[in-house]
Amino acid sequence: MPKLKEIAALLDGELHGDGELEIAGVQALHRAGPGDIAYAARDREGGLAGVRAGALVVARDGGAVFANRILVENPQLAFARLLEYFHPRRPFWEGVAAGACVAETAVLGEGVHVGPFAFIGDRSRIGAGSEIHSGVAVYRDVVIGRNCLIYANAVIRENVEIGDRVIIHPGAVIGADGFGFGRAADGAAVKVPQVGKVIIGDGCEIGANTCIDRSTIEETVLEANVKLDNLVQVGHNVRIGRDSAISAQTGISGSTRIGAQVIMGGQVGVADHIEIADGVMVAAKSGITGSVKSRMIVAGIPHQEMGAWRKNMVLARNLAAMREKLRLLEKKIKELEEK
Amino acid sequence: MPKLKEIAALLDGELHGDGELEIAGVQALHRAGPGDIAYAARDREGGLAGVRAGALVVARDGGAVFANRILVENPQLAFARLLEYFHPRRPFWEGVAAGACVAETAVLGEGVHVGPFAFIGDRSRIGAGSEIHSGVAVYRDVVIGRNCLIYANAVIRENVEIGDRVIIHPGAVIGADGFGFGRAADGAAVKVPQVGKVIIGDGCEIGANTCIDRSTIEETVLEANVKLDNLVQVGHNVRIGRDSAISAQTGISGSTRIGAQVIMGGQVGVADHIEIADGVMVAAKSGITGSVKSRMIVAGIPHQEMGAWRKNMVLARNLAAMREKLRLLEKKIKELEEK
Amino acid sequence: MPKLKEIAALLDGELHGDGELEIAGVQALHRAGPGDIAYAARDREGGLAGVRAGALVVARDGGAVFANRILVENPQLAFARLLEYFHPRRPFWEGVAAGACVAETAVLGEGVHVGPFAFIGDRSRIGAGSEIHSGVAVYRDVVIGRNCLIYANAVIRENVEIGDRVIIHPGAVIGADGFGFGRAADGAAVKVPQVGKVIIGDGCEIGANTCIDRSTIEETVLEANVKLDNLVQVGHNVRIGRDSAISAQTGISGSTRIGAQVIMGGQVGVADHIEIADGVMVAAKSGITGSVKSRMIVAGIPHQEMGAWRKNMVLARNLAAMREKLRLLEKKIKELEEK
Repeated sequence: MPKLKEIAALLDGELHGDGELEIAGVQALHRAGPGDIAYAARDREGGLAGVRAGALVVARDGGAVFANRILVENPQLAFARLLEYFHPRRPFWEGVAAGACVAETAVLGEGVHVGPFAFIGDRSRIGAGSEIHSGVAVYRDVVIGRNCLIYANAVIRENVEIGDRVIIHPGAVIGADGFGFGRAADGAAVKVPQVGKVIIGDGCEIGANTCIDRSTIEETVLEANVKLDNLVQVGHNVRIGRDSAISAQTGISGSTRIGAQVIMGGQVGVADHIEIADGVMVAAKSGITGSVKSRMIVAGIPHQEMGAWRKNMVLARNLAAMREKLRLLEKKIKELEEK
Repeated sequence: MPKLKEIAALLDGELHGDGELEIAGVQALHRAGPGDIAYAARDREGGLAGVRAGALVVARDGGAVFANRILVENPQLAFARLLEYFHPRRPFWEGVAAGACVAETAVLGEGVHVGPFAFIGDRSRIGAGSEIHSGVAVYRDVVIGRNCLIYANAVIRENVEIGDRVIIHPGAVIGADGFGFGRAADGAAVKVPQVGKVIIGDGCEIGANTCIDRSTIEETVLEANVKLDNLVQVGHNVRIGRDSAISAQTGISGSTRIGAQVIMGGQVGVADHIEIADGVMVAAKSGITGSVKSRMIVAGIPHQEMGAWRKNMVLARNLAAMREKLRLLEKKIKELEEK
Repeated sequence: MPKLKEIAALLDGELHGDGELEIAGVQALHRAGPGDIAYAARDREGGLAGVRAGALVVARDGGAVFANRILVENPQLAFARLLEYFHPRRPFWEGVAAGACVAETAVLGEGVHVGPFAFIGDRSRIGAGSEIHSGVAVYRDVVIGRNCLIYANAVIRENVEIGDRVIIHPGAVIGADGFGFGRAADGAAVKVPQVGKVIIGDGCEIGANTCIDRSTIEETVLEANVKLDNLVQVGHNVRIGRDSAISAQTGISGSTRIGAQVIMGGQVGVADHIEIADGVMVAAKSGITGSVKSRMIVAGIPHQEMGAWRKNMVLARNLAAMREKLRLLEKKIKELEEK
């Protein structure tokens, strides 16, 4: 078991208290026992009285008082490192399972793990250290980088390019055909083949059952470190900028451009062929019908600047009061007119 | 073929008419022929003239008049029993398929069925009578109870606990990582490992392609008999109370608590860290932004009490009329002022 | 390499310019080089100055001026044919993979391709020329027509009937149980077995991770050439008319009827037991709460006719102005009263 001083070194933090204390694990604040370390965000500072943890990670400038504590700049990131440290990831499968189907022309890097019932097609390349779990289908001519983690039953269609350290959660579908149709003279929908590709940058994370469509002829692109939650839809020819994070069940329509460090809540819908600039924040359930400027915060269907939306919402919920005022005015005017 | 009197006994109902009639099957009301039994809900009482069914199941106090009928308390539940009786479920696969991959340390109870290409990881335990269909991935250290039905290509990540009689539909993903990120000083998203678990109570049903995320360090919990429709998203650390039913494409954000016998329509969004009390009903497409008290009925984005929402909706759709009144008043006041 | 005159013949178009030019491929307008053909929609007519393509496909009546061009009635459909021509589809797998599991009683037509880890159950029939990719689960008693394309990890439950030329994208689930429950006297949800079927007409396309539920006892039906995008939910007993196209993340509740050539945007919700007539268009994110007449264009939650919705939206976003006017009127009336 590591000692508290070792943990402090790991976190590059400032130790107060008993550095010799042995730490068995990391726990949630209210569940931690004397052998555990936990973390206290700034807003809990007043409420540490009942905490039974052996030690806490606290913000350097948070002022939290606790017998054994490690002061760090960013307690949440320190917590993330503690979780990694106490819960090291083990590979799903050691080596390449006999029950996997890997094409002869596929190329697996050093230390690649492939689970049973995974399929890897012709000429696809998997970078060193990556894991392909059971039931994953990697079509032909796919490139997957190093140290990726592709969970069970994900599907990656042909010609998709995936960078290093990408995590793809179960059931995600990368590179299915974009939803492109023409209309014949009689109104019948006619499929437009989708022969473009999907490119996913280093460090991206794709949620469970999320879908990222291939472009008609160009590319659908996620830049580095984009984080998509579950059940997200990314239409064909979309581009999402680095470090953007998009919550569950949001949908981005075709050919839309999203900037860097954009944050979207869940169930947002974004129209096609528009531009969301860097640093924009979008409230959950919003409907974005036109381009949005850098660093704006928006909400509503159709979207408005957040402050305006809030004001309108209050009024919209009090329309009955407004109508009552109108009635009163009508009555008064009638009285005035009769005089 | 069973006789009508045997069906009446099965349903614990009161028979009127020919108990010796042989019943070949159960059918929809307007499709049933002389050999079929069907059911008539209360609101169809007036319209049984054209019905050609051999017999009907009707509500005891519904007053429906039909030659051969079985009176029961709850015709819908009786119908459910008839469907079970005439359409008994057969296992997907007898025994454990040669083409399945079951870890040596996995434990299968008596009468477990495992289909081809199913994967069951180290130390996972499957209770007696459960079925694991083709392509299902059960990661390591999973517990699945008795008489569960896990449909094709569902994925169950490590450490998930599933009770008895749970049905998981195709493509559902249980225990994928919650969507948890910190932000580095430069704004980059940094993954917070998700090492908690998911616990699913007895009798729950999880829809196709629905996702239930594992918690960061605690538990995501579905209490007994929770029913989730397809494409639902349940965030990390959520708790849903017993007998609650949630319709398709609804999303519940992280750490929210939902009570017992809550009913939600489709495409509802629920914010994080809030509490929906027992017996609440939520209209489809609502956006729940704060806690909701017991037995309230709510609608809208953000949600309001249903009655208030309805009134506001009527007004919101008639804003043009309100503006017209305002114009008229302005004109009249101008006239009065000029006098 | 084909010559431009051969391409013109393929597209049944009118050639202007150098028919002997060799064409290497089709490209996006702004990416095409001297060896490529591209297409220019009407609205780009003014902007062909910088285009470096060897040739263009343009609308017959579009008036676009470009050295080498093929005039056609419908440039988008011509573009679709070019994509097919230059990117012919190759089968996922030649023949039936040794690693597939096909029941002895299943019937495969001539030239059927079945990938590794695909499962085809008892008595299921796959029509000539169809492809079943890796990890697909076809339950028992399924009928799949000719020249279908079933992508990896799709799931097709028992008794489903699929026509010819149907495309089912990865992870789609056809025929999972509808969301049908009764309530016991104590409020507990009781499952109503779903023993009906799903029927999918010729030429339909089903998006990735889309779910189409089986009916309780009748049929869920997609008529010919219906196009569903990704992550769509189709409830039990729904019927969708021919050539309708439904965008991503839209949900159709049980027993609703949708006409022919209906077009829906993304994230639309449609209530149960209603009727959407032929040719209706529904804006993204709308909530359809009642039946809609033929060829109407609707938007909003609840839906309104598009024109009315637009007017109301403008007013709803300017409620603050309306309130200000009210305040002003109140003040003026007070002044008048005091006189």
